[in-house]
This record gives sequence, structure tokens and C-alpha cells, in this order.
Amino acid sequence: MNIQEYMQELGKQARTAAKVLARTQSSVKNKALEAIAQQLEQQHDQLLSANAKDLEAGQNLAAALRDRLALNDSRISSMIEGLRQMIALPDPVGEITDLKYQPSGIQVGKMRVPLGVVGIIYESRPNVTADAAGLCLKSGNATILRGGSEAIHSNQAIAQCIQTGLAEVGLPKSLIQVVETTDRAAVGELIRLSKYVDVIIPRGGKGLIDRNTQEANVPVIKHLDGICHTYIDDKADYDKAIAIAYNAKTQRYGTCNTMETLLIEETIAKKILPKLVEKYQEAGVEIRGCQLTYNLLPNIQLATDEDWDTEYLAAILSIKMVKNLDEAMEHIRLHSSQHTDAIITEDWSRARRFLNEVDSSSVMVNTSTRFADGFEYGLGAEIGISTDKFHARGPVGLEGLTSQKYIVLGDGQIRQ
Amino acid sequence: MNIQEYMQELGKQARTAAKVLARTQSSVKNKALEAIAQQLEQQHDQLLSANAKDLEAGQNLAAALRDRLALNDSRISSMIEGLRQMIALPDPVGEITDLKYQPSGIQVGKMRVPLGVVGIIYESRPNVTADAAGLCLKSGNATILRGGSEAIHSNQAIAQCIQTGLAEVGLPKSLIQVVETTDRAAVGELIRLSKYVDVIIPRGGKGLIDRNTQEANVPVIKHLDGICHTYIDDKADYDKAIAIAYNAKTQRYGTCNTMETLLIEETIAKKILPKLVEKYQEAGVEIRGCQLTYNLLPNIQLATDEDWDTEYLAAILSIKMVKNLDEAMEHIRLHSSQHTDAIITEDWSRARRFLNEVDSSSVMVNTSTRFADGFEYGLGAEIGISTDKFHARGPVGLEGLTSQKYIVLGDGQIRQ
Repeated sequence: MNIQEYMQELGKQARTAAKVLARTQSSVKNKALEAIAQQLEQQHDQLLSANAKDLEAGQNLAAALRDRLALNDSRISSMIEGLRQMIALPDPVGEITDLKYQPSGIQVGKMRVPLGVVGIIYESRPNVTADAAGLCLKSGNATILRGGSEAIHSNQAIAQCIQTGLAEVGLPKSLIQVVETTDRAAVGELIRLSKYVDVIIPRGGKGLIDRNTQEANVPVIKHLDGICHTYIDDKADYDKAIAIAYNAKTQRYGTCNTMETLLIEETIAKKILPKLVEKYQEAGVEIRGCQLTYNLLPNIQLATDEDWDTEYLAAILSIKMVKNLDEAMEHIRLHSSQHTDAIITEDWSRARRFLNEVDSSSVMVNTSTRFADGFEYGLGAEIGISTDKFHARGPVGLEGLTSQKYIVLGDGQIRQ
Repeated sequence: MNIQEYMQELGKQARTAAKVLARTQSSVKNKALEAIAQQLEQQHDQLLSANAKDLEAGQNLAAALRDRLALNDSRISSMIEGLRQMIALPDPVGEITDLKYQPSGIQVGKMRVPLGVVGIIYESRPNVTADAAGLCLKSGNATILRGGSEAIHSNQAIAQCIQTGLAEVGLPKSLIQVVETTDRAAVGELIRLSKYVDVIIPRGGKGLIDRNTQEANVPVIKHLDGICHTYIDDKADYDKAIAIAYNAKTQRYGTCNTMETLLIEETIAKKILPKLVEKYQEAGVEIRGCQLTYNLLPNIQLATDEDWDTEYLAAILSIKMVKNLDEAMEHIRLHSSQHTDAIITEDWSRARRFLNEVDSSSVMVNTSTRFADGFEYGLGAEIGISTDKFHARGPVGLEGLTSQKYIVLGDGQIRQ
């Protein structure tokens, strides 16, 4: 069978399985999650030995990539724990909201329903296989998973646990399918399988996501990068500003919600920056400042134009002084990736303007951009973060994997 | 300037104008709607004479197309009335919902925001120019309108009124732009202008929508066709069943929410169909039945396989007898366009199953499919009906032209 036929076949089976899942009760979905968790426990050693094969084949991979690829006791436990947490989350499917009588006498409301079939394309982390499969199952969607070729043995071992778990509770195995070929053409087919796939969620580097988005005819939930800003206004509280700006950069460097550029009003900069930059430098953060910042603190580097558009994902921070809120928001408009941007201020009207006017998926006042996360937002889980406006925006949890249909209840009403 | 540059330029201007509109107060948007309405009143004669040019140029058009193209006093009044109704609707932009404290102490909620720039592609009806422009303006979106080439003079005359109205209240004219060329290449450019356009809404025939969807790299809100079903269950109330099934077909023939296929349980068919079909035939509806229906009522036509997949948009109805609810839902799964499907039954469990399991944008119990409409649903207005699951589903009103961003309010919280 060629790749095209193979992917069509996966799609067809997923579509059929999705129909079964749409009418499956919450309790059965939860039993399946538990059965998969138990399989992962029982197959612990097999998972490690499958992963060892991948690691051996990937000896030439970069260290960071090898780290993401590696499974160990704690990563397997956290996959299992993640599935059990999903059991505790409320089932989004079937929720009815806004049910109201209309003048004609009909009652109109919305019922939450699964999207149908979700395609997940990801890179080296094998734990995504279990996480994504679990979230899709809980939200009533069939899933086609396409992991990185470097993780193929690990992913197939996890897939085996998933399939066995599904079968144990009498659900079709084709609900959650892992693409078994490492041929890259499979990705090209998957993103154009609009007949069978309702949405694609790519998880990985910008290159992967950009490529998938350009070529897809299936809708894509994506975030390309996280160039997040914090603006310290001259009405900011001194201590809060330092604590938040420090946290937003240093709490973790490699995450998409980490601040990459600090904007600061000129007059308060002289008071705050010397102490703040000292703290950053103690933590090993390299500072690249605009000319004014450089004039104030000559022991930093001078930023280039490119810095304002760079997601460092590293212990590097660019700092720019601005005249006022308008200049800060203009910088954000030009350089933000519309992921997460924050203002630090005690000024009511400026906080309101920032909240209203900044066009990012998360807009914050007096807190750290590091909070932009499905768990911190109370979603219970997160399958990705969308910087698009269409469909879901910001952290995407179970609700983002669903849609709403209208339901209309009558008692014989006809239209006049 | 070539078409590509021209469309890029429109897109760029729309994007800039959208930024202005996003921070424009409700009262100003409402004043703009009123100013446009007054312009349409004042330019009444100019609108008619521009329309006369289109009608003269379109003498060879089919009668139905000429009818859609024609403006008259009542159609101009209804454009004006439509704009004034929008003034009365609540502004969706800025609405904050679900604002809740999280364990960390941050407050997380969602704020409704405009999508940005909306591209509308439509066919001959010039009134869409005013309706769509008004809805997009009210929901805070800039709009690029591309009407049918046969309506170019009418659309430009309406555009003139819109631009004057915008200017009167100090809003940029580029908020609502009408494409001034009739070159079809402009459509091809518009649907691939993802840099500047956030969503495309095609309004028109299936061919137009299909083409746009295949080629677009901008998300599309679309509905392709309306093959709507009504299933009369054997537990249906006799009088309600007849009244609803009659209304769903005959209240209007040319609309997408008109029933095209009647499904009926075999045992109740013998009781209901003779009277119901007689009523249809008195109204001039041609009946095409399955073999069993034909056996019961030989004065009808025998349906072909093709009938089950046809949107007649005419005084034709196909009727099929089924054994039970499962067979009815299976027929709907195979043949429905997922627009609107209804069940007539007094049986609680079957009604619940139908509501849960039928995967259409509107699912109804004991009422007429003709109610699937933004006004009847209380949305106040409608820019289209989406049969997709992604983003909006069912009738799309002001809310469907918006998205939600997360807002996070803190008081110095940092992430641990």
C-alpha cells in the first residue's frame, strides 16, 4: 500500500471510530483512560527498552533532542499521572448552554460536541503520544498521531498500550492510531486529509508548524513562537515590577511564555534597571539593551534590530526604554508574536487600555507571563497554545478540542 | 497597479484600519451605522440609477439572477432598517466572561475581541454590501467586500454611502472597502491574503464556496448546501407531525433550511402519509418516494439514488420510509449536509438520542427546520450559516465574527 492509500485508510477508520466515540458515555471514556494508564504501568520495561532502541539509533542527535527523546521512570510516571488527572476532569461533551426561549416559542441552546478527528504532528517527545491521545479521547475525538521518526519505537510501544487499553473496555482500536511509517510524505498526506480530519495540531518547532500551515487544507491550531513582552510603566510598584520581571525571564528559559523583551518607561528605568539588571546578571542572563539602556548600564551588550524579533528560548533578555504606554504598545504591535504580553502598573486607566488594546492571546496586568499555561489557567490540561484568532486562542484544553452545535427544542412550533 | 498589488494594498489598509476600530467605542460605531443609514436614505435615487445600469448590462442574465440583482424602494428600506437594528444589538467586543481566581491568586478570564479583517465574497445581491459591512463594523472588524461583477455599479454606489458615513464620524474609510475591479483574479488574491485577512466568508452558490475553500490559505466560514431532514418517529404526535413536516417544506422553497427529505417510520407512514402528501400536492409540491412510499401512494414519482443527495431549493420533496430511529440517523449520517435535521417524536429517550447523536449544526426536536436562522435563534442578525465545526457552527451572528483572548489580572503574583 502506498503512503497516500495508507493515510486515507487511517483517516477512514478514524472517522468511523469517531462516530462510535461520539455516543460513548463519559464513564466508558474514563475507564479507557484508566486501562491505558494501567497498560503503561505494566509495560514499563518494554517502554524503556523500545526507547533504548530509539536512543541508540539517535546517537548523533543533538543533546537537547536526545534529552527530549529519552523516557525514564519519572517521565513514564508523569504520563500515567497525566491520564489519571484527565479522568478527574469534567467531560466537555454534551454540555448544554444558553438554552433560551425565543419569541416563536422554540428553545434554542448550544450543545458541546467533539470536533471529530484530530491529527497531531509532533517531534521527539514520546510522552506527547499518551498526553495527546488522552486529551482527544476525553473530548470525544478520534486521533491520528504522527510523532518524530527518531521516536518511532517508543511511540509504537506507547501506541500498543493505548490499543490494548481501548480494546479492554470494548472501544475500537482505530480511535487512536499512530502512523507507523517514518516517511515524511505521511505528514503531507495527513495535513491535506480534509475529508477525514477536522483539525491538525502541530507541536514542535517553528519550521514544522510553518510548513504544515502553509500546505494544509485542514484547519490548524498553531502557535509559531512566543516573543513575550513585559512593560514596566512609570506608575508601577517598584517591588512588584522587579519580582515579576525577574520571574518572567528566569523562572524557566526554554518555554514559549518566557519574557524575551522588557519594555520600561524612561524615568522609572533609572530607578529600577540597575538593581534588576544586577539580579539578571547574577542569574547568568545576558542583557542586550537599546541605546538608552546601554548608556545607563555600560556593562551590557547593545541590542541590534534583530533582537526585537527574536525568541531566544535562552538566558538572554533584550531591554528597551520607551517614552510612554503608547510607545510600548506600538513596540508590542510590531514585534510581539501575539502570545502573551504584560503590563506592570498601578494606574487604572493604563491597565484598562493595555487589556483592551493589546492584541495577544493572553494579556496580563501585574503578573508574570510565565502563567500563560493551561494548568495555571484552570483548564486542567493543555494540548497546545494557539496564537491564532480563529476557533481557539491562548492555551487550548479540552474545550478547544470541541465545537458547539445548536439544539432547538419545540412542541410543534412552525414558522410563520 | 496589478491585481496582486492592488489587493495587497487593500489588505494593508484594512489591517491598519482594524487597529483603529479595535479601540473605537461602541457609541462611535453606532453613530457610523446611523450615518451610513442616512446616506443610503439620501442617496436613494442614485442607488436606483446605479442599479439600473447593472440591470441594463445584465439583460441576458437568468430571471432569478436579475431578481436578486434588482434594488427597489423596499429593498433599500430593508438595508437601512437592517443597519438600524444593528445599532440596537449589544456590542460583543470587550465582553469579559469566566473571570475566576486560580490557586496562584491570579484572576483568569476571557475577553471578546474582533477577528480583525473579514473578507466577504458574494454574488449578485447588492444588499449584502450594506448588511455585511454593518455586521463587521458592529463587531469591530475591518471588511473587504467583493461582490459579483454583475452588481458592480450598485455595490460602488452603496460603498460610496458607507465611506461617506464613516468619514462623517471620523472613522477611516478603509474600514470598509469594496473591491473596485471585476477581474476574477481579485478573488484568488483575497482568499490567499492570510497576512492581512483573518477570515473569508463566501456567500453564494456551492460552486463559489467550494472553489474558495479549496484554494484559500485564509480560514473560511462556509456552508456548502442545506440537505435538511425531518424524521417522523412512530411515537410522533399526528397533528404536530403533519403541521411541522408541511411547514418545513412549503413555508419557503429556496432557502437552505428548507427540508429536502422526509424520513418516516414505516408503521406510522400508512397513517400520516396519505393526508400529508395530499396537502403537499395541493401546494404544488412534487413528491419522489422510495419504493415503499411509492407502493403506498402510486400517484407520486419513484425516487432515484441521486434524490437523497440533492438540495432541490424547489417545490420537490423526497420521502423515505425507515424501520426505526437507527435507520433514520444512518440515512442522515450518509446524506445530510450537516446543516439542520429534525425529529418529530413524543418519546423522551429517542429525542435525547437524536439530539446527542446527529452531527449537524442545528439539531431539532418537534419543530420546523425553517427555524434555523440567526434572527429566529435570537442572534439579532446573521452573516451566514456555518456547516463546519471549526470556530462557528450554525447561524453566525456578531459573536461568530469575534474571538476571545485571555486576560490575566494580578497583584504581583509570580510563578513558583
